[in-house]
Amino acid sequence: MRFASLTTPTGREPVLILPTPEGDRVLRLGHLAGDVAAILADPDLRERARRAGAEADAADLPRLDPTALAAPVVPGKILCLGYNYRGHVPDGADPTADDPAFPDVFVKTADTLAGPNEAVRIPRAATDVDYEGELAIVIGRTARDVALADALDHVGGYTILNDVSERAWQRRQSQWALGKCSDGFAPLGPWIVTPDEVGDPQDLLVEVERDGVTTVSQSTATTVFSVAFVIHHLSQVMTLHPGDVVTTGTPQKLPAAQAVHRPLADGDAVTVRISRIGALTTRFVAASAPDDSEVAA
Amino acid sequence: MRFASLTTPTGREPVLILPTPEGDRVLRLGHLAGDVAAILADPDLRERARRAGAEADAADLPRLDPTALAAPVVPGKILCLGYNYRGHVPDGADPTADDPAFPDVFVKTADTLAGPNEAVRIPRAATDVDYEGELAIVIGRTARDVALADALDHVGGYTILNDVSERAWQRRQSQWALGKCSDGFAPLGPWIVTPDEVGDPQDLLVEVERDGVTTVSQSTATTVFSVAFVIHHLSQVMTLHPGDVVTTGTPQKLPAAQAVHRPLADGDAVTVRISRIGALTTRFVAASAPDDSEVAA
Repeated sequence: MRFASLTTPTGREPVLILPTPEGDRVLRLGHLAGDVAAILADPDLRERARRAGAEADAADLPRLDPTALAAPVVPGKILCLGYNYRGHVPDGADPTADDPAFPDVFVKTADTLAGPNEAVRIPRAATDVDYEGELAIVIGRTARDVALADALDHVGGYTILNDVSERAWQRRQSQWALGKCSDGFAPLGPWIVTPDEVGDPQDLLVEVERDGVTTVSQSTATTVFSVAFVIHHLSQVMTLHPGDVVTTGTPQKLPAAQAVHRPLADGDAVTVRISRIGALTTRFVAASAPDDSEVAA
Repeated sequence: MRFASLTTPTGREPVLILPTPEGDRVLRLGHLAGDVAAILADPDLRERARRAGAEADAADLPRLDPTALAAPVVPGKILCLGYNYRGHVPDGADPTADDPAFPDVFVKTADTLAGPNEAVRIPRAATDVDYEGELAIVIGRTARDVALADALDHVGGYTILNDVSERAWQRRQSQWALGKCSDGFAPLGPWIVTPDEVGDPQDLLVEVERDGVTTVSQSTATTVFSVAFVIHHLSQVMTLHPGDVVTTGTPQKLPAAQAVHRPLADGDAVTVRISRIGALTTRFVAASAPDDSEVAA
């Protein structure tokens, strides 16, 4: 199933996205729950959503207007991994030789959340904004002190997060928060795909396209820490709740893309594509001085 | 004014705390707004609260039951500073010689928030839990791209935060989130004191007492970055909203306390005291295995 959140005149409504040969259709689920997280958290609601999707005549449903998609969940917390993909490993070398012992985890604040159609505003003080295309885990079932073998049972689904980062602010001090937490620096979506449709989360191709050029292309098979390990590990020190988002780090840019990389600027667009999940395109816009002085006034 | 949040049978209610010779009294403000942040954000509501306090006959008001206090605000984000107090500077030395160029900022998740009477649960995986007594700024007025000279206008008040930290998990990787973000690791309170009563935020004594011994005692005059600078700096890359909490780092433990320091354990209590604000006492309890397996089941 693909769950999404649709902007309505009165707020947001959870919906099921049903693909048809003529494009995606929308099945409203507001009668089941107020948001997607509540459906993911409840086996009965999930089953009712599944049945509603199976029984619907998709061709008769309204077409999906992609511009009406909001972030599929409003996470209670967004946790992100740094350094999780192995770089190029020469033939014959042990690919695990340089692996860190533990995942490096940081937080993006609630204010970083953005829907799949919101443009990211580049702060006036920013000089080096960058993208990071990442597989995002959406928790479906409360997780605390979870064994590795049980960890995947706590996944409600998967989506895509662009971990937008301001490198100059990120590198000025040991902790990365000021480079990671500008407003809207976590576009999320476009929808959440349930684990039965995603299959093995360690066999997904993560690709990023910028200006028509593929700058990242690497499989989640090359991560140091699996989805299961990350949930197990985090749950030892914190409770993960339904709707919480945990991202799994970004692959390095391809060498050719690294060579010509320039900071994101007004008008740029970046698309993150992950197999069996979908694509998230984010536009970047410059801060507009008049608006800002109004806010500060 | 001292604003607090009181647990009521139906939720929480903002209140004003009025000191009398016979102890603190409570003036309910639920008719003004749903939470303290909304009052701090609105000059008219602040004025109505001030007038209500001035006109009340405090002796006739109900006594404050300290166990009914909830966290005074539910922050949209909690941002914390590392390394902000200067250590001992030898006579004649330049106290600013080793100052970092920028504040080191990290995030505590929403789930770390705890009220002034909630015990902190020590996770089963924890081996080295520590306390950090900190002056916490509560934002009163939206701040983005704020000039240094205007920064203090955005403070709604001050309170106390214990930045509880698990050192073993904190030190395992470059980013500190796993040592900082266990459930309930940010006890906040007991109340918010408005800037007119706090006066100069760079002239407050921060003290921590553990087991009857003062382990920290240092003035906010010795911070590297002032409250004003921190607000100005953060606002360059993110919007600070009413109710957001920014803490200002912890002083080092006194040498005698460092020599005998041991990790916090079941039954310990730590009190953080800040002049003109108040005292926040936090109890620590061990994780209870049966409860946890229920959560994970």
